[in-house]
Amino acid sequence: MNQKISPPSRGPVDHDVRNQIVEAAAEHFSRYGYEKTTVSDLAKAIGFSKAYIYKFFDSKQAIGEVICSNTLLKITTTINESMDGAPTASERFRRMFKSAIGASVQLFFQDRKLYDIAAAAAGENWNSVANYDLKLKQTILDVLQEGRASGEFERKTPIDETVNAIYFVMKPYLNPLLLQHNLDRAEDTGVMIVNLILRSLAP
Amino acid sequence: MNQKISPPSRGPVDHDVRNQIVEAAAEHFSRYGYEKTTVSDLAKAIGFSKAYIYKFFDSKQAIGEVICSNTLLKITTTINESMDGAPTASERFRRMFKSAIGASVQLFFQDRKLYDIAAAAAGENWNSVANYDLKLKQTILDVLQEGRASGEFERKTPIDETVNAIYFVMKPYLNPLLLQHNLDRAEDTGVMIVNLILRSLAP
Repeated sequence: MNQKISPPSRGPVDHDVRNQIVEAAAEHFSRYGYEKTTVSDLAKAIGFSKAYIYKFFDSKQAIGEVICSNTLLKITTTINESMDGAPTASERFRRMFKSAIGASVQLFFQDRKLYDIAAAAAGENWNSVANYDLKLKQTILDVLQEGRASGEFERKTPIDETVNAIYFVMKPYLNPLLLQHNLDRAEDTGVMIVNLILRSLAP
Repeated sequence: MNQKISPPSRGPVDHDVRNQIVEAAAEHFSRYGYEKTTVSDLAKAIGFSKAYIYKFFDSKQAIGEVICSNTLLKITTTINESMDGAPTASERFRRMFKSAIGASVQLFFQDRKLYDIAAAAAGENWNSVANYDLKLKQTILDVLQEGRASGEFERKTPIDETVNAIYFVMKPYLNPLLLQHNLDRAEDTGVMIVNLILRSLAP
């Protein structure tokens, strides 16, 4: 189910109020869960009227999107930072997968209530998740192109197929709905899977 | 959670009664769900006393184990039959994964209520699931050994590591708890993933 929502922003002057709502909502969701909270609950908790909140956000999901985007941005930043200075494309790939699993486990599961938003977002394919997936595929593509250019990776397979196949192999370790069933040994399994992927990329 | 249960069988003379209970229970679970049904509900539906059912099965799970074993045996049989007569190890591997996905989608999801038992079994790692996993790993090992012997597959990676890595890459398409999130495109994605695995096996 791909739910289209209009951009939540209603002008830069209201930026502070928006932030205030998002922060209070994140706190509220993390205590009471995303699914169980209504916009009325939020309004009561923040001390705003429901109508005032609707001036800034079309729906609860629009607030959830901002929280989710912020979380996924943290994961993307962790991934990118981990890859800095890696000497080879293989090593960049290893670091990408390892840091992606580590950051996902930490951000989705250290606080079970944040899992609640992430699970809704992943289950309903929110825009924030679709954007995150696009960025991840772009990162995979960048590493592949680098490794193909340096002769580290094979060049016969159409690169789009390779990107998609790797994305689908990685997904169970990044999507919170799937990762919850792999949590115990996600990091160990991740190492085995990266090794398999790198063998598949050998020239 | 690895729940040990004692063997449900209490002697061959009672074989027919056991079958009767399993069949009636399968019918009842498939209409009302596994989780929601108690042994009392089953007894009432079958027309036996609860004590009589307990003469044959230690628990509801013991009955569920038989139903689950039967289902998983159907999947294993489908996989093995699909592999018969394949000319190469690569082709055997392709057929294994394709038929495993097809049979899992059909058996777990064509009847959502059978999904209910399969999900409980997978989530709690019942003996029937552990046995199925062992058989699957053995099948992967057999194909790998065949392909290594014929020179079709590389021989450098320790074979146990290869078996485990392939098992973990396949798992999201066989475990019903994970498969439910991949259902829409499990078969297409499966083809891409098999291609990636076969590239990883190239000498």
